[in-house]
Amino acid sequence: MSESVPADGGASAGSLGLGAQILDWADQLAGHSDQANSLTVAYLTRAHQTAAAEIAGWMIEAGMQVEIDAVGNVVGRYSAQDPAAKVLLTGSHFDTVRNGGKYDGRLGILLPIAVVKRLHEHGIRLPFHLDVIAFAEEEGLRFQSSFLASSALVGAFDPAWLDALDDDGVSMRDAMRAAGLPGTEEAIRALRRDPARIAAFIEIHIEQGPVLLERGLALGVVTSIAGSVRMTASVIGQASHAGTTPMTMRRDAAAAAAEMTLAIESRCAQAPSLVGTVGMLNVVNGASNVVPGRCDFSIDIRAADDATRDEAVVDVLRVCEAIAQRRGVAMSFARTMAVPSAPCAEPLMDLLAACVERVGVPHFRLPSGALHDAMMLSRITNTCMLFVRCGNGGISHNPAETVAVEDVDLAGLVFLDFLRNFRA
Amino acid sequence: MSESVPADGGASAGSLGLGAQILDWADQLAGHSDQANSLTVAYLTRAHQTAAAEIAGWMIEAGMQVEIDAVGNVVGRYSAQDPAAKVLLTGSHFDTVRNGGKYDGRLGILLPIAVVKRLHEHGIRLPFHLDVIAFAEEEGLRFQSSFLASSALVGAFDPAWLDALDDDGVSMRDAMRAAGLPGTEEAIRALRRDPARIAAFIEIHIEQGPVLLERGLALGVVTSIAGSVRMTASVIGQASHAGTTPMTMRRDAAAAAAEMTLAIESRCAQAPSLVGTVGMLNVVNGASNVVPGRCDFSIDIRAADDATRDEAVVDVLRVCEAIAQRRGVAMSFARTMAVPSAPCAEPLMDLLAACVERVGVPHFRLPSGALHDAMMLSRITNTCMLFVRCGNGGISHNPAETVAVEDVDLAGLVFLDFLRNFRA
Repeated sequence: MSESVPADGGASAGSLGLGAQILDWADQLAGHSDQANSLTVAYLTRAHQTAAAEIAGWMIEAGMQVEIDAVGNVVGRYSAQDPAAKVLLTGSHFDTVRNGGKYDGRLGILLPIAVVKRLHEHGIRLPFHLDVIAFAEEEGLRFQSSFLASSALVGAFDPAWLDALDDDGVSMRDAMRAAGLPGTEEAIRALRRDPARIAAFIEIHIEQGPVLLERGLALGVVTSIAGSVRMTASVIGQASHAGTTPMTMRRDAAAAAAEMTLAIESRCAQAPSLVGTVGMLNVVNGASNVVPGRCDFSIDIRAADDATRDEAVVDVLRVCEAIAQRRGVAMSFARTMAVPSAPCAEPLMDLLAACVERVGVPHFRLPSGALHDAMMLSRITNTCMLFVRCGNGGISHNPAETVAVEDVDLAGLVFLDFLRNFRA
Repeated sequence: MSESVPADGGASAGSLGLGAQILDWADQLAGHSDQANSLTVAYLTRAHQTAAAEIAGWMIEAGMQVEIDAVGNVVGRYSAQDPAAKVLLTGSHFDTVRNGGKYDGRLGILLPIAVVKRLHEHGIRLPFHLDVIAFAEEEGLRFQSSFLASSALVGAFDPAWLDALDDDGVSMRDAMRAAGLPGTEEAIRALRRDPARIAAFIEIHIEQGPVLLERGLALGVVTSIAGSVRMTASVIGQASHAGTTPMTMRRDAAAAAAEMTLAIESRCAQAPSLVGTVGMLNVVNGASNVVPGRCDFSIDIRAADDATRDEAVVDVLRVCEAIAQRRGVAMSFARTMAVPSAPCAEPLMDLLAACVERVGVPHFRLPSGALHDAMMLSRITNTCMLFVRCGNGGISHNPAETVAVEDVDLAGLVFLDFLRNFRA
């Protein structure tokens, strides 16, 4: 490698200066939006396609061969000299939530491109192919098809999605064809990567939470992508007159749901990586002068390991049933999602941790409470993730999402160091 | 009085048999509805006007002089021989909530008409004028103008109501004119009754609650109409990612609102006539994977006496503020309604209690948690109320609302006895 690429990544941390380039690209990329005054990029909209084209252009500038695959992923390859070398995959998504942030997903695309560009400028080749993948879809905004892009690479694309309709009644198949993609099951099935050819997957991502910020750390090594169970719950009590029903004769669905909400909060505070959320809570047909007859709510429980999560789910259901019984209300649960946790690979975590320490950041490991494309890739290869500190209190999925240029500089150095030391 | 009208109302309780007539009328009256498959009668709709006409017809049959006044009340007078005699007022409302019950309000109109009809058939005159008033509006369904009909009689009609618009943009003034009413402030102001001419107001009403049912009592004497304070509350926390925000770093608006809901329930269980209800509870823009940033709810607190209620309100606000502070969320309250309690007049309660005992029902007094037209009339005269047991667990404002014919028989006897013994 060239002398201008620091070997230790520490002392000369500022010298690469990739942060400014990456944030500049992120600003430019945010210029493509489905909505005039906010950043919204849904799958295969016009803004989505122009964003893809811009990313492809930067990849080409960086010395990569680029293709847009059958689900719209922009795949840039920085080739090894040996065509038979294994492939290290990296990347993240460039679609957004409605009114989202500029760095969610995109940081994990732009940072590798910037690093490759620097390698290319110095004529440095890697001993493995590096594929930087800008995943076309992760958020599920348009077709409720979260992770469709990364699922295609692992053979988990659900063909039924092709018939899914957006709010305007356009099917995914038609949206693909309108975007110049084949829109066939065959073409999508062909995207499945051969696990034997893949060395690993590494994803760089903004933390989307406050943990690194609170600890004063620029970077963190992810241990596991938390598994998640989501449920909907309905409490059925007896609607009755708020003035004429004595407190002792009530079967109040909202009071029962309130007690359950606090029980969930309390139970899910009992393990470090465990979180439990009642994100929706609504008295159905509520009126100020009517004792609630029905209250619906959602439950989302996550933990870095499935055993911790599943124990919490069992306890929560048991406690809620007991509350319902004591209060004389009926209740029902429906499980709407269950995703197992995806632990990161120990050797990759160790390598990444060493790189983080070499740029002078104390080594810190944390689980990812949010789901990421790495979860999908973990089905076919070893994965790891680097989190970059999220500013503004850790807010994400929001225009206020931000990262510090210095932190991105450091992340660039870490990624470069990782590439230098990774053995395919 | 004729021999066929029982003097003691006890031994020959069944002989009047007014219950069947009254329930039959209630069924007929329920045939007028704004909606095909449910009972909904909003102020001055077509169904409201045909219902008024049917009531007027029954009043005329019963020997009364009838007029429809400037707010649409159907007023039937059963005159005393002496034109200068004072007037005993009775009545209740014939409008309904959406998808309401057949007896709410209407029982207090139809029962007096049936009793007057019997008096008339026997040629019996009373030593006072008896005005049976079918109030045109109590529920506030169309114009959010609850009690407009009884308020007109006590000089409390708010002229601003004339400009209130219904969901179709029709003003109350135009609705009045379309129904053949003058729709002027002057005409409504003229409805105010001279307190010097009024002897009292008695209202018969279905309990709309489970207390008499639970105690196995057909009838109860109301002690007071509970005063009510209604508030809306907003809790503002910090919306954040349900997966990435550790439990210790959350400012969860729904969990805070849940804790407040339970605090309200608990505080309002501490006095016999006190009730507190969170009837609306809603996470604003909630999503299953987002820690709630805002949760709105309503508070309704009532008690038979204002001191009990006001102490509870003070305590509830204090406890909610403490919860908000501990959880790091902001909160705001707005008082949307505050109605003082309306105690019934002791001598009238005693007379009514004696009548109840004479039909063989153990004498029982209870507060009314619901508001009634009697509350408005208490501004200008002494009032009392007779509650009739509500079937089906005490459910009201619901198609399942029901009364037993035997209970209505007894209530008819009690009312007749009351008329016989009342001294104007």
